[in-house]
Amino acid sequence: MTSSAPATTAGHNRADAGLVDTLRGLVGAENVLTEAVDLAPYAFDGTAAIKQRPACVVFARDRSQVAPIVKAVAGARVPLVTRGSGTGLSGGSVPVDGGVVLGLNHLDQILDVDTANLTMRVEAGVITQRIDQEAAKHGLFYPPDPGSQKISTIGGNVAENSGGLRGLKYGVTRDYVMGLRVVLADGQEVWLGNQCVKDVAGYSLKDLFIGSEGTLGVVTEVLLKLLPRPKARRTMTATFATMEAAAAAVSDIIARQIVPCTVEFLDQTTIRCVDDHAGLGLPRDAAALLLLESDGHPAVVEEECEAMRQALVDAGATGVETARDEADAERLRTARRAAFSALARVSPTTILEDVTVPRSELAPMVKFIAECAERHDLLIGVFGHMGDGNLHPTFLTDERNEQEMHRVEQALSEIVDETLRRGGTITGEHGVGLAKKAFLHRQLGDASYQLLRTVKRSLDPAGLLNPGKIFE
Amino acid sequence: MTSSAPATTAGHNRADAGLVDTLRGLVGAENVLTEAVDLAPYAFDGTAAIKQRPACVVFARDRSQVAPIVKAVAGARVPLVTRGSGTGLSGGSVPVDGGVVLGLNHLDQILDVDTANLTMRVEAGVITQRIDQEAAKHGLFYPPDPGSQKISTIGGNVAENSGGLRGLKYGVTRDYVMGLRVVLADGQEVWLGNQCVKDVAGYSLKDLFIGSEGTLGVVTEVLLKLLPRPKARRTMTATFATMEAAAAAVSDIIARQIVPCTVEFLDQTTIRCVDDHAGLGLPRDAAALLLLESDGHPAVVEEECEAMRQALVDAGATGVETARDEADAERLRTARRAAFSALARVSPTTILEDVTVPRSELAPMVKFIAECAERHDLLIGVFGHMGDGNLHPTFLTDERNEQEMHRVEQALSEIVDETLRRGGTITGEHGVGLAKKAFLHRQLGDASYQLLRTVKRSLDPAGLLNPGKIFE
Repeated sequence: MTSSAPATTAGHNRADAGLVDTLRGLVGAENVLTEAVDLAPYAFDGTAAIKQRPACVVFARDRSQVAPIVKAVAGARVPLVTRGSGTGLSGGSVPVDGGVVLGLNHLDQILDVDTANLTMRVEAGVITQRIDQEAAKHGLFYPPDPGSQKISTIGGNVAENSGGLRGLKYGVTRDYVMGLRVVLADGQEVWLGNQCVKDVAGYSLKDLFIGSEGTLGVVTEVLLKLLPRPKARRTMTATFATMEAAAAAVSDIIARQIVPCTVEFLDQTTIRCVDDHAGLGLPRDAAALLLLESDGHPAVVEEECEAMRQALVDAGATGVETARDEADAERLRTARRAAFSALARVSPTTILEDVTVPRSELAPMVKFIAECAERHDLLIGVFGHMGDGNLHPTFLTDERNEQEMHRVEQALSEIVDETLRRGGTITGEHGVGLAKKAFLHRQLGDASYQLLRTVKRSLDPAGLLNPGKIFE
Repeated sequence: MTSSAPATTAGHNRADAGLVDTLRGLVGAENVLTEAVDLAPYAFDGTAAIKQRPACVVFARDRSQVAPIVKAVAGARVPLVTRGSGTGLSGGSVPVDGGVVLGLNHLDQILDVDTANLTMRVEAGVITQRIDQEAAKHGLFYPPDPGSQKISTIGGNVAENSGGLRGLKYGVTRDYVMGLRVVLADGQEVWLGNQCVKDVAGYSLKDLFIGSEGTLGVVTEVLLKLLPRPKARRTMTATFATMEAAAAAVSDIIARQIVPCTVEFLDQTTIRCVDDHAGLGLPRDAAALLLLESDGHPAVVEEECEAMRQALVDAGATGVETARDEADAERLRTARRAAFSALARVSPTTILEDVTVPRSELAPMVKFIAECAERHDLLIGVFGHMGDGNLHPTFLTDERNEQEMHRVEQALSEIVDETLRRGGTITGEHGVGLAKKAFLHRQLGDASYQLLRTVKRSLDPAGLLNPGKIFE
């Protein structure tokens, strides 16, 4: 249980012409890419500065093709990396040099909407946003809304257990997955879970695959839970002279027994970058900008918004604005929506981090990051989900500047240590992948880390599924 | 991955005097029972007719004693069965003959209530009901309410992933577990999870331990998520001439975008038994009695109850009653609360089943059970959670009547087949344990079943933790 040999080394082959021929036979030549120019777009994902060229990319056009593909690749002892839209932010779908990329983005059928049982069954390649749009047609709601929802696939969301802006009230992807069809490392297919609200027949293996980042199996189909669609939503913003005051306001809101669906924040660096970029006339002196939303029954939303306004004022907000209508709400959301792209314009390299702390630790954590940036002479914008303690410290840097990159590494390591000291996690919603695997052991400690390895080894003994991810 | 050797056979020893001495040394002689008369109460749990005498019972008086106990027992290669209050309904905590029972009921400290982060940290032996009572002192809410909550422990609830009456709206135990301290099969201790609302650092192993019925590790501490306490609750009952009409009413309520916190039902057999037992003047001709509750904001509760009343009337309810106040609500809840004990009085042996189907399949499933009872000349009362499709068919029989027990077995097997045909599960909230392990393979199929075994074998290679449970 505590053997320490790495799960993924030795004995892996590069994809050769024989395997490529087999794959062509399975899916048709037009669904197998091998030319360098065709492979280039599949050499990276949404994560900065991580690239590795695969030997070939194969697209499944039908769910039934996935098991034979996995069998063929596993039989050849070639590493396999599954990919949806490649929007991941931790390098989880970056290929293995010489390995095979399995593209599931063509498996994009919505298979079933069951309004009696409030479920939807979809193929893994369905774009996240389509799920909520389809649910809305039936007056239903799929809450998880990762930032990349317009292009990410549900399979990728399941692999990373993606979050989004509504985590505090509505939870994350895991909370909406009732069942999964998974092709295992040896090509066997299993269905895990069902349409029952309660099911305790055996270990909850679906929960093991959710968030396993493609290292334990290939998810081809997902059964999702839906909710009734909230009837009303109200949006407000508030600015504060200190991050502590903003955090105190949020604590007070929760102490008033209100769980807003959204509590987002921008720090001063981010506010200024957004203002430079989008010219929204934001208060450049504010230390924090909050975006808050309440949703649900119209009467409750009304009452909650008034209580939230009062809490914000009581906590010393320098400005509070409530949207008059949906168009006005869209205007208020603009600053938060523009945060990442505004920061990304500032410098050649943007490193988006994802540390998360218990909500009560958020303000001191943001303060620590600001001090850390100053100490290391770095520019770090911080924004994120204040309601669920999920911070996105964003390093605005230049990967060509070796000396600065070294300082980035040092600062990041200090931020990780402070996060863990405050009971936090190295990743709230982006996953470990390649980007954070250096820190995983530090968070989990030896026994938990080895336990993860034990599970990996038992489900993928040859270590062929997304090797080199999560584990050092 | 698909080897079929059973996980728990060969090589296990009976606890001998040497091991008993070691255990006495660890916890003090007063916390180790070995006399037959002392062991008798620990030979069974809440499940009818399943008994096995352990060699000894050891009580941990402190969390730090658990790891050394597990190490000592594992070192002696003796089977270990962990036990809270022993209220389980699937034989999950029935001892192994000659093995050790580890009692955690004295680990009953509430360690921390964090009102800023809405969490509570408790020892495994804390009584379930105390958790919500403690939460209530802070205006907070712990929703899971298994039927045994007045005596069951949270550790047992985690082991079984216990449900309760609020599953449809609030989910089950799993949905409120943020972290676990677990002693592994080899005596190593790990902490899984944290206070973060979002955390995707590695596989979600806590989800693997939740519902694993003591077969993968010993849970000693639980970090729970709390919610704001609903401000209002309203209770109503309705009677119907057919179960189909009752089910149609519930479907209509959900189609109206209402998710009641409770939707319970009693079938005719149960109604009559309750009426005989408690003399409540229930309508003995009704085919179904529903108990419905809405909770949340007072205005919403008011509105939902009116909409529910309308849906019940539209669906042809023969009577609808809304509680005037809390005392009146208690009166309405009496029939549902009395269901099991009323049925249990009818015959010497009561076998409580726990099959669960997607909600839309509940009415046909209840009808099938009624037909099945008639075909096999058996008395089966059915009650349960209509909102989440969780049925409790209750066989009123006599274990001394061999012929009748044979018919019970046949009927049960048919009910299981029908459940699975309708996309259901053999157990919604009681667990597999000893009682349902004969059916698990039928539900999961070969590949999933073997996958479970693979996980069991990797985490408990010697098969010493609760052997003989879940798996055949």
